[in-house]
Amino acid sequence: MRTTRQIFVGRVAVGGGAPVPVQTMTTTDPRDAAATLAQIREVAAAGCDLVRVTVPDDAAVDALRQIAAASPLPVIADIHFDPRLAIAAMAAGAHGIRVNPGNLGGEAALAEVGRAAADHNVAVRVGVNGGSLEARFRAQGAKGDDAGALAASALEACAVLDSVGCRQVKVSLKSSSVPATVEACRAFARQSDYPLHLGVTEAGPPSVGIIKSAVALGCLLLEGIGDTIRVSLTAPPVDEIRAGIRILEACGLRKARPEIISCPTCGRTQIDLFGLVAAVEAELECLRLTGQQLDLDKVAIMGCVVNGPGEARDADLGLAGGPGKGVIFQHGEIIGSWPEAELLPAFLDQLRRHLRPR
Amino acid sequence: MRTTRQIFVGRVAVGGGAPVPVQTMTTTDPRDAAATLAQIREVAAAGCDLVRVTVPDDAAVDALRQIAAASPLPVIADIHFDPRLAIAAMAAGAHGIRVNPGNLGGEAALAEVGRAAADHNVAVRVGVNGGSLEARFRAQGAKGDDAGALAASALEACAVLDSVGCRQVKVSLKSSSVPATVEACRAFARQSDYPLHLGVTEAGPPSVGIIKSAVALGCLLLEGIGDTIRVSLTAPPVDEIRAGIRILEACGLRKARPEIISCPTCGRTQIDLFGLVAAVEAELECLRLTGQQLDLDKVAIMGCVVNGPGEARDADLGLAGGPGKGVIFQHGEIIGSWPEAELLPAFLDQLRRHLRPR
Repeated sequence: MRTTRQIFVGRVAVGGGAPVPVQTMTTTDPRDAAATLAQIREVAAAGCDLVRVTVPDDAAVDALRQIAAASPLPVIADIHFDPRLAIAAMAAGAHGIRVNPGNLGGEAALAEVGRAAADHNVAVRVGVNGGSLEARFRAQGAKGDDAGALAASALEACAVLDSVGCRQVKVSLKSSSVPATVEACRAFARQSDYPLHLGVTEAGPPSVGIIKSAVALGCLLLEGIGDTIRVSLTAPPVDEIRAGIRILEACGLRKARPEIISCPTCGRTQIDLFGLVAAVEAELECLRLTGQQLDLDKVAIMGCVVNGPGEARDADLGLAGGPGKGVIFQHGEIIGSWPEAELLPAFLDQLRRHLRPR
Repeated sequence: MRTTRQIFVGRVAVGGGAPVPVQTMTTTDPRDAAATLAQIREVAAAGCDLVRVTVPDDAAVDALRQIAAASPLPVIADIHFDPRLAIAAMAAGAHGIRVNPGNLGGEAALAEVGRAAADHNVAVRVGVNGGSLEARFRAQGAKGDDAGALAASALEACAVLDSVGCRQVKVSLKSSSVPATVEACRAFARQSDYPLHLGVTEAGPPSVGIIKSAVALGCLLLEGIGDTIRVSLTAPPVDEIRAGIRILEACGLRKARPEIISCPTCGRTQIDLFGLVAAVEAELECLRLTGQQLDLDKVAIMGCVVNGPGEARDADLGLAGGPGKGVIFQHGEIIGSWPEAELLPAFLDQLRRHLRPR
């Protein structure tokens, strides 16, 4: 486990052993405060901890003032090209800003932004991307994805910020290549204790992007590297949040309550398991959205007797299919058998018996 | 990179530096040879290298004879409980078998199966699962998921097979927990050179299972551990194959041709990027299914000028959106600008110019 310094983005701690916050970025017009706030509320309901909003011009700064004041989540302004917008965003109430040293206009501009961040006590993310690495770093390594070059660029930006008293700093090193992202983060982690924001840039559509992000972020998180994450997908922000939370759950950094395990089915399966799993997932999502909690750690939905209740003996509640019927079990003990048509209602009834009193 | 011995499942090499084969398991009735063969052809078209078919009874052994003879892929018989079925499956032409030492009936049964496998020169997978670990190993560790206990169980089974001259052996150590799966595989990899089949057992529905599998398999593959993979999903087998191939691509072990990178969109995006990406993905899938190849390594689909063509300068072909229009670029050079309505046709036209002559 890498030990990092702790910073705060608004009220949310990042690094220093804090739970890993999940981020996304709004896709609404940033000049439309109402639409952007509506999307922020939607991602907050899905479990988002920090949200980023692009700030491309002065009209967006004006909207940001309303957004930051009314947002249920700390708001990070995404800044490109113009240091003046970074400073205006902080004055407008941004809880954090993200700058890319590769396109902000040089060291003096970064120092000016850092001074303003120190004055406002606003967190700064130094976001270095393989594709926009400054030419002088690119020349050091073989290409923009070179781990050493990405880490060197980030470290230099951190030093500039530190020299002007800007202490609330986190860093991201992203590439669209998974191995390059992993190597760059490892290289940076070896050289500093700044908290790391993990992500794969331009990861692509969900079919590909979820897998690239899960491999890169999962690999690093299992090594103890990574203090906040964002899954980039060409998809609605709420999908990024769901994927991010599931990556943390897979790494044992958050607990899915309950965890669903289900077998892939095979030629032994004599029951509609895909349908059963989808129905149980929908029921759990519905309970979650209505704020109801179950006193269950693990739910197992198994196609046959090979996998359940034996393989799933540690599940608090499970079902296993058979020819035209199925059994329900608790901690490996069969509590009854139902014809297939009655199995789902019987299972959901058992599930609801574990609802926590409100 | 872990160095493993090489074995063969039919004509497919596993281990010893061979390309990592992707596996799945049929979900049809194994007594229905025609339906099972149809599904095998479907997964083969999707890129599957090895296929497993459950063999729960003598009727399935009869069907296996036809399936193994006509299958375009080597066929692995999945055996539980009954060593007699393992031996019958090998006699019926299975190219590999999978046994679970936790439910085969003890050491003598495993030795008998191993002798038959050596006679038929059939590959054996020792498949150890946290949920069905023999009690005497379970007692060693804290629980079934204990890495040392899983590795010890697998090593003992390998020793039994080795003692009867069975040399074509690979091993899997699976848990429904990602960290437990990773630790068990690492523990086994440190102690032997048998090729490893990687998978997370009962990974669940695709929403969760793809992420669990990508984290566990990706983490191990990036360390050089893993000689064949199977993504278990409560979903059709072809979905398992697509996810498995994408995990290998994310790890740099297979090359996506072309790789699609696309930005997540944000408030700067003024074009329907989700629609554009979906249309380009569909076109590429269509070309793939009809056996047409493009001379392109990387295609970039970007929402705005911040991410493209600058960030995507290494793409062979790309587009970047703007207000009501977009540009198309090659290797960072803009080749023209089109109104939004004409952008997709223009881009697909450029894409098709890279079709390889047949």
